[in-house]
Amino acid sequence: MSRSPGRKQEEHKISRELFVLTYGALVAQLCKDYERDEDVNACLDRMGYSIGIRLIDDFLARSAVKKCRSYSETADMIAQVAFKMYLGITPSVSCNSAAGNEFSLILDKNPLVDFVEELPAERASLCYCNILCGVIRGALEMVHLAAEVSFLQDRLKGDAVTEIGITFLRKPEDRKHKRN
Amino acid sequence: MSRSPGRKQEEHKISRELFVLTYGALVAQLCKDYERDEDVNACLDRMGYSIGIRLIDDFLARSAVKKCRSYSETADMIAQVAFKMYLGITPSVSCNSAAGNEFSLILDKNPLVDFVEELPAERASLCYCNILCGVIRGALEMVHLAAEVSFLQDRLKGDAVTEIGITFLRKPEDRKHKRN
Repeated sequence: MSRSPGRKQEEHKISRELFVLTYGALVAQLCKDYERDEDVNACLDRMGYSIGIRLIDDFLARSAVKKCRSYSETADMIAQVAFKMYLGITPSVSCNSAAGNEFSLILDKNPLVDFVEELPAERASLCYCNILCGVIRGALEMVHLAAEVSFLQDRLKGDAVTEIGITFLRKPEDRKHKRN
Repeated sequence: MSRSPGRKQEEHKISRELFVLTYGALVAQLCKDYERDEDVNACLDRMGYSIGIRLIDDFLARSAVKKCRSYSETADMIAQVAFKMYLGITPSVSCNSAAGNEFSLILDKNPLVDFVEELPAERASLCYCNILCGVIRGALEMVHLAAEVSFLQDRLKGDAVTEIGITFLRKPEDRKHKRN
């Protein structure tokens, strides 16, 4: 690699600490705004969705990736290119269904929770990083892939790892096609 | 420079786009929460303050800077080291008072507003980036420097540049000492 692309990349980077603390302020504000964890989670997901539908252009432009030919390729792309580019981490990917449309991203490290020790007892159902699910969902929708995205495990809740589940929703045409 | 510190630095970096869009979601949420721009501005400043008092430890550890011996040195440190480290930009600094305690940080580029075209007409008094003032104020307080920090000019409001004013508040002991 030459030096120039590195420098160019560097211009797109900012400190993780500032981001993590700012995200913490956002979650704290939503916890003030909404009493129920479910409402905070839904709001974070909506915010993430709005971010995802804007971020996808940036992603396609900067990654210069080609169209994925399978759900499996798409899941790998999210983990190995998108997560690396935006959060500086690379989750591992596993396929969870024989149908090949359910995947898990396993995060050993989650930079978003750097300054969070544990969730307060009264916020036990909070999906602290739920914005990530929304971002993935929004970005996928912009490349015509409907998906359900949610946290399946969360270290903040005492799980061994943090796991994001992605279920690609087959299009009605696909089903029709299969039936024929 | 050797390669290792660069790699180490890289681990602390995340994508600016994700940060900028997340910050936008935070401001949008506060605009929903508070009708008056002044309340949004105050809330952003408070959030920034909370971030600043936590970020200062990270800054001191990573920058390994020595104690500043003057307000002027401190202002340069904020612009050349802290802004560079956290936002990837280096504002220029000017001193605005004969007393030597008022400074301006002039930002030619402001990464936080990358996706913002202009403020909506009904939000004309919004200090969109006011969180930065709070961060600076909080961080300074932790090194025993009281300061007032506010936006003096803002490109989002049609000004030619974005300018953050920092007024270091002299300690009562300083004043007494001067009088003697």
